[in-house]
Amino acid sequence: MLRKKIRINPESECLRIEGFIKEKRQEMGRKGALLGLSGGIDSAVVASLAARAIGPECVSCVFMPEKHTSRDSGKHAQLVATRLGVEYKTHNITPKLNNFGFYRFVPGNITISMIRKVLLSVVRSKDESSFESGLGKSNSKFIAQANAFYRIKPRMRMMVLYEQSEREDLLVVGTANKSEYAIGLYASHGCDDAVDIMPIRHLFKTEVIQLAEYLDVPKEIIEKPPSPDFIAGMTDEGIIGLSYEILDLILLGLELGYPLANIAAEIGCDSLDVDYVIGLKRKSQYRKDIPYTV
Amino acid sequence: MLRKKIRINPESECLRIEGFIKEKRQEMGRKGALLGLSGGIDSAVVASLAARAIGPECVSCVFMPEKHTSRDSGKHAQLVATRLGVEYKTHNITPKLNNFGFYRFVPGNITISMIRKVLLSVVRSKDESSFESGLGKSNSKFIAQANAFYRIKPRMRMMVLYEQSEREDLLVVGTANKSEYAIGLYASHGCDDAVDIMPIRHLFKTEVIQLAEYLDVPKEIIEKPPSPDFIAGMTDEGIIGLSYEILDLILLGLELGYPLANIAAEIGCDSLDVDYVIGLKRKSQYRKDIPYTV
Repeated sequence: MLRKKIRINPESECLRIEGFIKEKRQEMGRKGALLGLSGGIDSAVVASLAARAIGPECVSCVFMPEKHTSRDSGKHAQLVATRLGVEYKTHNITPKLNNFGFYRFVPGNITISMIRKVLLSVVRSKDESSFESGLGKSNSKFIAQANAFYRIKPRMRMMVLYEQSEREDLLVVGTANKSEYAIGLYASHGCDDAVDIMPIRHLFKTEVIQLAEYLDVPKEIIEKPPSPDFIAGMTDEGIIGLSYEILDLILLGLELGYPLANIAAEIGCDSLDVDYVIGLKRKSQYRKDIPYTV
Repeated sequence: MLRKKIRINPESECLRIEGFIKEKRQEMGRKGALLGLSGGIDSAVVASLAARAIGPECVSCVFMPEKHTSRDSGKHAQLVATRLGVEYKTHNITPKLNNFGFYRFVPGNITISMIRKVLLSVVRSKDESSFESGLGKSNSKFIAQANAFYRIKPRMRMMVLYEQSEREDLLVVGTANKSEYAIGLYASHGCDDAVDIMPIRHLFKTEVIQLAEYLDVPKEIIEKPPSPDFIAGMTDEGIIGLSYEILDLILLGLELGYPLANIAAEIGCDSLDVDYVIGLKRKSQYRKDIPYTV
């Protein structure tokens, strides 16, 4: 049942999203749209939809690598832009990150490869997953530092996008999807949540993949494992500790108000996984609605 | 009538806000609170409330000047921190801004003093105020560039605050008040709106002043004209084109659902001012609820 509900009609979905982009651009009175291409599937899908909505000549894309970004990311970002015929620029943010102390946060003699090793081993030991603890209080000083470290990157990208968007009167188009948004798989106030509009925030990752196929996003982009471009070898699913297929089904079950026991039973997952997702949703909630005194 | 409603009971108001800060810090499980002191009244009030709520030993303050920041700002920020007994650091962001190209955005031979002159003259010619047009489409390339330029500063401050807060497990406490939040008098995704909690977002600026008096904020801070630390000589009220007294009364009238004509009549302002404020509210709305496809 749940599995069936996660299938979308790509054609009508595209029309709906394109209408949304067109409408918001007009309401906000901007000349065009600007988005960061990461080489991944979400930004490829959003770039395609933006180009269809307002014409490729009104869409600017920026690829913002830094020295740890994989070569494939750039190749894939460029491929998307070329196919769509949109403006494409590369803005290497290494000097900006360097100046911010990014490559120095690692204390003392600890190297990036040591961080990588530790984080990969820590990730998904459910009682203290680096991802989950990053949403709330962390008991590990090391994890706190790693979080401070990697979140600078998406925030700097946000700044680069906004500087250009304000100079050129463009709408900053976000690429966050429902799955990552729901569980807070992004750095707050970075290029994922600090945008002008979010055209695919209503779609689960598995639905975005369906759209990507419909939109003819290059196969190599669809097929590579989604990654947050944090540390080489670290994938979204590795960080979350669940496959997107399972995550999306759990999120859908919760959204539809299914009894918790039924969700696990129908999906065939551990009921601890359902509790885990509920916890992630709760812990990331305050980032979406910033609390204020009432 | 409207004027009377804008008086608060400072004692109970403080208790309410302190309770809020204490509660959120506990809910999010953070060691303490971190805020940027600007030398202005809002951050002085919030720092006082945070120190009262969780103890000065749990509050860290950072003053983040850049080369155009006035000397008084630093003096006042330091004064607040010393009186409260909270941790105080200065983090000069000039090199970070410089590296971001901040001081180069000004095209060609245009100097900061020329920008200042032009902006001061443009500000509040109601049909194209630089502030209002910055919220939407701008017809002036110069104003677009000026907006791109000055918004880098609060965003860089946000990044500095978050880097420290994540390393030290602190709650980033925002200082935006209801007046500036309502009309969008802040750069989106900067240190005003990109925070963890907003303890005075429910108070008009004129109410914050009442709290400041109750909290014994130094007189020189209460009495100096509020300024966005954008360009020397530019005040909040100069940018908005209305005094906070009038702005707050208009906002209150709108909040209470008064008929528009009555608002102007009761306050004794131009009905165009009411329309102007309605426009600012509308134009800044999309920054608060980032639109997504539904």
